[in-house]
Parts: sequence; structure tokens; C-alpha cells
Amino acid sequence: MQRVGFVGLGLMGGPMAANVARGGYPLAVYNRSPAKCQPLQALGATVASSPREVAEASQVIITMLADAPAVEAVLRGPPGLLAGGRPGTVLIDMSTVSPAQSRRIAGEVGEHGWKMLDAPVFGSTGPAKEGTLGILVGGEKDVFETHREILGKMGKHLYYFGPNGNGAAAKLCFNLMVAAQVVGLAEAMSLGAKSGLDLDLLGQAILDSPVASMLVQRKVPAIVRRDFAPAFPLKHMHKDLGLMIDTGHEKGVPLPVTGEVHELFTAAKACGHGDQDFAAVFLQLLKMAGLSSEPG
Amino acid sequence: MQRVGFVGLGLMGGPMAANVARGGYPLAVYNRSPAKCQPLQALGATVASSPREVAEASQVIITMLADAPAVEAVLRGPPGLLAGGRPGTVLIDMSTVSPAQSRRIAGEVGEHGWKMLDAPVFGSTGPAKEGTLGILVGGEKDVFETHREILGKMGKHLYYFGPNGNGAAAKLCFNLMVAAQVVGLAEAMSLGAKSGLDLDLLGQAILDSPVASMLVQRKVPAIVRRDFAPAFPLKHMHKDLGLMIDTGHEKGVPLPVTGEVHELFTAAKACGHGDQDFAAVFLQLLKMAGLSSEPG
Amino acid sequence: MQRVGFVGLGLMGGPMAANVARGGYPLAVYNRSPAKCQPLQALGATVASSPREVAEASQVIITMLADAPAVEAVLRGPPGLLAGGRPGTVLIDMSTVSPAQSRRIAGEVGEHGWKMLDAPVFGSTGPAKEGTLGILVGGEKDVFETHREILGKMGKHLYYFGPNGNGAAAKLCFNLMVAAQVVGLAEAMSLGAKSGLDLDLLGQAILDSPVASMLVQRKVPAIVRRDFAPAFPLKHMHKDLGLMIDTGHEKGVPLPVTGEVHELFTAAKACGHGDQDFAAVFLQLLKMAGLSSEPG
Amino acid sequence: MQRVGFVGLGLMGGPMAANVARGGYPLAVYNRSPAKCQPLQALGATVASSPREVAEASQVIITMLADAPAVEAVLRGPPGLLAGGRPGTVLIDMSTVSPAQSRRIAGEVGEHGWKMLDAPVFGSTGPAKEGTLGILVGGEKDVFETHREILGKMGKHLYYFGPNGNGAAAKLCFNLMVAAQVVGLAEAMSLGAKSGLDLDLLGQAILDSPVASMLVQRKVPAIVRRDFAPAFPLKHMHKDLGLMIDTGHEKGVPLPVTGEVHELFTAAKACGHGDQDFAAVFLQLLKMAGLSSEPG
Repeated sequence: MQRVGFVGLGLMGGPMAANVARGGYPLAVYNRSPAKCQPLQALGATVASSPREVAEASQVIITMLADAPAVEAVLRGPPGLLAGGRPGTVLIDMSTVSPAQSRRIAGEVGEHGWKMLDAPVFGSTGPAKEGTLGILVGGEKDVFETHREILGKMGKHLYYFGPNGNGAAAKLCFNLMVAAQVVGLAEAMSLGAKSGLDLDLLGQAILDSPVASMLVQRKVPAIVRRDFAPAFPLKHMHKDLGLMIDTGHEKGVPLPVTGEVHELFTAAKACGHGDQDFAAVFLQLLKMAGLSSEPG
Repeated sequence: MQRVGFVGLGLMGGPMAANVARGGYPLAVYNRSPAKCQPLQALGATVASSPREVAEASQVIITMLADAPAVEAVLRGPPGLLAGGRPGTVLIDMSTVSPAQSRRIAGEVGEHGWKMLDAPVFGSTGPAKEGTLGILVGGEKDVFETHREILGKMGKHLYYFGPNGNGAAAKLCFNLMVAAQVVGLAEAMSLGAKSGLDLDLLGQAILDSPVASMLVQRKVPAIVRRDFAPAFPLKHMHKDLGLMIDTGHEKGVPLPVTGEVHELFTAAKACGHGDQDFAAVFLQLLKMAGLSSEPG
Repeated sequence: MQRVGFVGLGLMGGPMAANVARGGYPLAVYNRSPAKCQPLQALGATVASSPREVAEASQVIITMLADAPAVEAVLRGPPGLLAGGRPGTVLIDMSTVSPAQSRRIAGEVGEHGWKMLDAPVFGSTGPAKEGTLGILVGGEKDVFETHREILGKMGKHLYYFGPNGNGAAAKLCFNLMVAAQVVGLAEAMSLGAKSGLDLDLLGQAILDSPVASMLVQRKVPAIVRRDFAPAFPLKHMHKDLGLMIDTGHEKGVPLPVTGEVHELFTAAKACGHGDQDFAAVFLQLLKMAGLSSEPG
Repeated sequence: MQRVGFVGLGLMGGPMAANVARGGYPLAVYNRSPAKCQPLQALGATVASSPREVAEASQVIITMLADAPAVEAVLRGPPGLLAGGRPGTVLIDMSTVSPAQSRRIAGEVGEHGWKMLDAPVFGSTGPAKEGTLGILVGGEKDVFETHREILGKMGKHLYYFGPNGNGAAAKLCFNLMVAAQVVGLAEAMSLGAKSGLDLDLLGQAILDSPVASMLVQRKVPAIVRRDFAPAFPLKHMHKDLGLMIDTGHEKGVPLPVTGEVHELFTAAKACGHGDQDFAAVFLQLLKMAGLSSEPG
């Protein structure tokens, strides 16, 4: 069985790594704040003191980090992954980055004789724990095929989209819809609030209706109760929206609605909602409608 | 049992009236193009030659029409509903109109001693046939309670939102989300197309994901196959978006994303997609991305 | 010389009527709050006690009012203009209304045998006083030609755009540019503020540059000093933006940027800036950027 | 007198370098396509065969290039500027780049003991030839003061905005207004066209009005005649709009209208207008209104 390394043990990465460990793979882990390594150690993983040590111990390295600069930071420098790896190492980057960033990273590791898959996911912490994420893969076909099994420990659905960057592109398409659905819900609720509707009842009608995706089902109660404990922090969605806009700019795809959503998230973040769940964009809309954004 | 009139036997109104007839209510129907009355006649309904005749025969009158001017047109003039009704007549307007329009109509029929419920619906032709629509009601509470039974012939879920206009407001909130979800899907597919992704596969991933509302489930295959036979014509959604923007303007609710969607639909309609399904906004986005909008 | 009536003696209408009086025309005036009639009385005008009296005394009637409902209100009912006029009366409506509204008014007065010109203006209170406004005219060509002289008392530039409604359309085109220039200035200043630039210096550079229209020259000091005494109240521009969007919707002209500006003004008005000058949209942008909108 | 180098002899850079030469400065020039060096050679400049040679010959180096990657390309590598300079060299980068890019470049040359001014300009080719540009400067105050004279050969107005990056920020603020004014004009003309107005006459009215900035004066005839020979290519404005959005994203400044303009330019570029003047955004709006964008 391949020796696996895992860097980035956050809300998503932690349970994903645990599923790899439970799947029987010898695992070496690294996280910037070491406390998050303990649950993995309890599952038998080796705790490395640097990305480099992870690479020295591994044939396959999974990264699940905040953004492309974070991935590049763990790759580079004397304590970095590249310093510890060797030709033939496979990097599976599951972070949400842009296709251009992903291809740049693939190019950089390729110069060291590594292979890369971009393999970002959909699904939140629940599916991460259950190993039922969707995984959107870009890279060489045979590299993907060789790593189906390990990906299958983390995800129920695997989708192969073609060359490097295409997994990243698919993830942006997916997150675009996530943002549009939640902002649509937030504008509807804001219109309802100022029209004097009972938001509890409006929420119930929405949940009974054809727009009630699982995502909407999670966000309706959050908005009605104004409970914005972060499942996915607004500042992260703001970053992802920036990647969509940059990609649209490069590829020549106008995304007028997403551009609008991006500016709305810029306002929400600037006004102090960055660390709340991204559904808190509702509070920003309330403020712009001249309503208090305090709990009712 | 109350004698019921029904005006407007289109894609939605036809099956809704049929459910009223099957529910055992004596029914008089009117439709501008009389051919649509035949299925109702087969169910035992009387076919009236004018809205006035409908009103003369009915205690409760249901209207399901394209917009507020259409409702006002069947109300007014010598052959109109108002000319045939009497004090105590109840109008149930199930058309999608703005709250301001709905309150104006309620005021107009009120001057004749009528009562009104605004009672627009969610759900498409399937639930209309099955009698499982959601019905969003505004008007006096006791008028609503008295008409639960007849509304229940058409809908599974009834929601009482308060005074006249509030049912109309709730419908706009709902349609706002419908538009946002479909435009989000269309922008995602447009970004995917120009990023070189296989749209079949991207559609499959979307359908497996937390954004897969019933609405999205219906529109993914439409977009992938570029089959835009109208379930809900784009020009009608364009009208509804205009009502949302007008309502936001009057009530002081900024709807930046919906404003954006409205302009995109204005473009799509101006470029010839008005009679296609509103998911054909995808073709407009393709054109704006410099791609052919012809079937692939 | 034709006997002239003038209804609506506000910031613009007052000085415009004064120029008509100084031009030697016998003048009857009406204003809802009668105090505004005194300066005209001092110039020899008759003060009427109703629009009807104005019409009884006049061959040509000029209206300069807030919006189409205000025009319709002075036309209709027993004390209205139509009750006092006679076939052959000419109405010159100089209010800013939509082309559709203007054509509806032309139709209504036409049923009484009146003629109408829609003749809205550009230029603010300064040119109104000096009689150097631009006047954008729609209506029958010969009616325009017959009234060149009286229009020339108020305006330096007369433009004949064709049938009724075309003057109104031209005015919306013009105000669209006004809004875009001022919002552009406001976004630039907001970006400058949060980038740490000295706004006085940035304003100076703008004034030296090719974007320094007369409009921009007036608004730069207003924004730098945060002095938003209303030259043109934000709520009026908000109304005009709504007319543009409605017209674009009807005519099939997507106006994505104007749609955006409209939503921004909806927010600014909802947040309490409606009675300030429309350049106070800058304060709304500052708030959305998380900056205090208090004077620096 | 300081020995000066100039890299980038395009539509703007060429005449700017010529003014430096005419000002009496010993000048070494480099341009990727060498033909553009001839007019400078005729004025006595030395033609270098690489940026490195420029640096070897100069105390002050001016760059006027398409974007930040182009500036970085002439700085780096064996034939680059940095390879030929020495501590104390001053780089004056007059290209339009983002504040973040500008500070990164300042940091990079600072590591070699160089100083930098960011000094982008406003004004088009006319003022470039006449030496009457506006120059927006960031960098150390004393470096600015020391180079007032040479900047004064190219510009009439010099504005010192503070530390590195602030000149770049001011330029983005300025170009934001340029884009907003021209898109405002284009939407107004598009609304006018579909409302049946004579665009020649509408253009004349605009030119007589308070919105008639010098910029608008240049673009009205371009739009009326549909003559989009590039004074400033649309693709370059598209790039600048991307820099504004990125800067707003980083600094936390929502720019809703500029975001909208950006997406519109993405569409215009994707639809083949990238090499036309940026006022050709008008043609994109016509297409979106379902009108032919062919010359009338």
C-alpha cells in the first residue's frame, strides 16, 4: 500500500485524513498548528515536524489548504515538500484554487519529476467525515486511475475532467452555484422582511418548494435564526468568487451575476462579516435596505 | 357547495380548474381562446361566453392570468367580471402580480363589495395536474379560512401570509430564488464550457451535489441538451423580474443580484429567446462569451 | 402674444416661469404651496387658485412637476387643467417622465382636442435662471415650430427629437449619463479613500483631467467636503433611474450598468440619503466599504 | 544632466521619450520591435540592443509598458535592466499597473539598491506629444523632488500621492472614471437608438450639456460614426478594469458599478472587440439589445 502524506488538517482536511488512515494507508501528517495532528496520531499516523518530513515519508502527498499561496508555501523552501520528495512523487492538491494557479503548481512540481492531480471536493464537513465527498479531478488519466482507491476513501463520487486545472475549474463552477443559491435566498429573505412577511413561514414555504436543495435546506434556518456560525466562512467564499472572476477574465467568460455577488461579498467582508458563515451576506443586504442587522 | 368560476385556462390554469371540477364544485369557466375550455366541459363545467357570465354564475371566482393588466381587463367593462358579480363575491387571484398591483386590484373589487385573496402558487405543470401546488395567500384571515377547502383541491401546501399583497410578495420572493438558481447554473455551465469541461459530466456532478434542487434537476438536462421547450417562458420570468425590481424600488430593498439577472433577461429576450424556456438564458451567456449558441 | 399658464414653481420651475414672464408673455401661475407664487406675482403674473383657473386663462400651459402622477393629478378632476381648457390648448410638459408615461399623457389630453409637447430640460438651477437650459422636445413638428419662441425664453438650445415621448426618451439618456458620471466619481473617490490617497489632491487631479465635465467640476468639491446640500435630490435621481430601467425593460434594451446604479441608489435612499444631493451615493459606498460616512 | 534610459516606445511611450530627448537629456532607448526606435535615434538617442544595455548607460530609467508582467520581463534575466544597473539607479515606471504590483516591483528593485517612482499618467496621445500629461506619482518624497524636472518634460501637472503604489492607485481611480463615462455614454446611445432617437442629434445635445467632458467630446463622434480605430484598445481597458477589481477585492472596497463594467468588457472582448477602441463597448450593448452592430 502506498505511503501517504497529508498536509492541512482543518475542518475538512482533518476528517479526510482520518478516512485515509482508517482505510489502512500508512500516513504521515503535518499541520501548521500541531494540535490538530493529535486525532490523526490516535489513528496511527506519524506526525511530521515539517512538510519536508512528510514528503520524505510518502509516495503520495495530499494537500488541503486555504489557497494557492498556502500550497506554494508548503511546497517551497528548505522545510518544504519539494525538498523532501523525489521524482515519481504524486501530489494530490484538494484545495480550492483557480485553474491557472493549479496548472502553475502542476508545472512547478513537474520540474521536479512529480505528477499532480488537482482534486478539489464538494460537500461540507458531514460528507468529509463520512467519506462521501464528491471529488473533481484534473490531471493525467493514468495517474487518476492509479489513485482511484485512495480518493475513494474520501469521496463517494469521483469525476475525471481531463488535464490539470480542469478539476479546479469544475470546483469553481460548483462554488459559483453555491454562492448564487445562497445569495438568491438572502435577497428573497431581505425582500420578504421589508415586505412584512413572516420569515419563518417564508422559510417553510421555500423548504417545501422546488428550490429546496440540500444547501438551501441548511441555510434557511441559519438565516431565519440569524445564526451564522461558520460552516464555510464568508471570507473563503469571497476568495473563491475572486478566483471565478479572474478565471472568467482570463478565459473570456462574462459572469455578470457572479461579478455582482463578488462585489456584495466584498462589502459584507469589509463590513465585518468575513469570519461568519457566508450566508451572513443576508445581514449585509439588510443593512443596505436600511434595516438593523441585529437579531430580531 | 360554492359555485365557482375560473378565468384563465393556460398551462397552469387548465389543470388547476380541472382539479376544482373533479373536487365536485359546480364550475363555470372562461378563456380568451375557447378551445381550452373543452377539457373542462368534458368534466361537467359550464362554458361562459364572457367573464361577466362567469361572475353571474359564481360565488367564488378564480383568475389565473398572465399579468395584472390581464386581470384588470377581465374585471372591467361591460363584459367584465365586476359587471356580473354582486357584493359578497370572492375573487381568488392566483396570477403572479406585484404586491402593489395586487392591493390595487383588491381595492378595486372592494369598492364593489367583493373580497379578494391573492393566492399565487409555486410548482410547475406537474404539481398543477396532481393538485400538489404550494399556494401563497394574502387577504383577510377569515376569507382564507373559508376557502381552505377549495384551495386544497389545487394545492397541497397552503401558507397564509397576512393582508392582501403578502401572498403576491411571497411569490416574488420565491421566483427570485428560481431565477437565481437557474442563472447560477447557466453561468456555471458557461464557465465550464469555455474552460473545456465536458458539460455532461459537469451536469452529473451538479446533480450529485448539495445544489441539486428539484428545479436544478430539471434544468441541468435542458441546458446540457440545449432543449429549451418552454416549461416557463423566458418572457414571463422577465416580467416577474421586473415586478421584483419595482417592488424593491418601492419598498426600499436593494436587490443587486436580481437587478443583474433582470438585465441579463432583458438581453436574452431582446436577442430572441423570449418564447423559449427561461433556462435559455444559458444561450445568451454563451453568446456573450463569444461562443456559438447553436446546438453543439 | 399667447397667454401662458405655468404649473409647478419649484427650484427649476420658478426661475423658468420668471423668464417667461420677463419675456413679455401674459402669465397665470399655480403652485401647490402658494408662497412660491409671490416672485411671479411681483413680475406681473396672475396667481390662480387651481390648475383649472390656469387653463381657463391660457392658450399654452407649461407643467414642471416631480413625476407623471403629479402631472396627471393637475390634469384631472374638477379643479384640474383639463376642466378649464378647450380644444386647441397646448400643453408643454417639461417634467422628467418616461416616454411611455409621456405618450399616455399626450393621448389623454389629445382626447380633449389638446396638443402636447414633451419638453424636459438639461441644466440645473443656474441655467434655469439664466434661461440657458437645453430643451429636448417631442411632439408634432409644427407644434414645436410654433412654440420655439416661448421655449427660447427658457432655453438656449432646442432639440426636436420627433413624435411624443422622444423628448422624454432623450432626457432619460441624458440623466443616465449624469448618474454614471457621478457614480463613477464616487467609486473612484471611495477606492482612493481606502487606498490611503489624499482626496483633495485626487479631486484636483480629476479636475485637471479629460473627465472633468462641468458636472464633475460641481461634484468633486461636494464629495471632498462631504457637502450634500441638494442641487438634485437623490430620491429624484432614484425615480429617474427607475424610469430608465422600466423603459429599457419595455424597449428591450439591457442597461447593465444603469441597473447597477439603480440598485445602489435604492440602497442609498433606504439608508437615509434620499433628501441629500445625489452625489451622496458616495456616502453609501463608504459605508459598504466599512468606512464611516461621517465627515472626516 | 542625468543620463536617462527609456524602455517601451509605443503610442504613448514614443512621444514621451521624444520629449525627454528634446529636453536635452542624454537618452538610451529600447523597444521590443526596434523600428519604433528610429524617431528617437533621429533626435540623438542611443538605441540599445537590450534593457540591460539601457541600464548600463543610465542613471534614471523610465518604463512605459503594457502591464506588470511586461515590466517584470524587462527587469529580470541576463538581458534585463537589473543586470545592467547599479545601486542608486532610479526606475520611473509609468505603466498602468495595480498598487500591489507596483509595490512588488518597488520591492524587487529595492533589493538591488534601486529607488522607484510609480508615475502613471492621464491624457492620451495628444498630451503625450505636447508634454502636457498629468503624472500621478508614488514613492519617496525626495526621489520625487529630485526628478520633478525630467517628469516636467513629459507632463504639465505633477501630483505627489505618497509612498510607492499610491501613484498606481490614483491612476486606477482615474481610469475607473474614464470607463464609467464612456460606458454611460454607450448605454445612453443604446437606449436612444432603440427608442428611435436620431443619434446625431442626441450626440449634439450631449456635447452641449454638462456631461460633455473632453473625454465625452472625443467619444461621441466615434460612437455616432461607429469609428472605433483604437485610441485606447478595449483589451487594455479590460486589463485595467481587472486591476481595479483586484485592488477593490484586496483593499475591501466594493465597486459594484466598476464590477459591472468589467463584465461588460469581458463580453465585448470575448465577442471580438478587443483591438478596437474601448468605446466599441457600444457595439456590444447594441448586440445585447438585439440590434445589428454593423455600421448603420
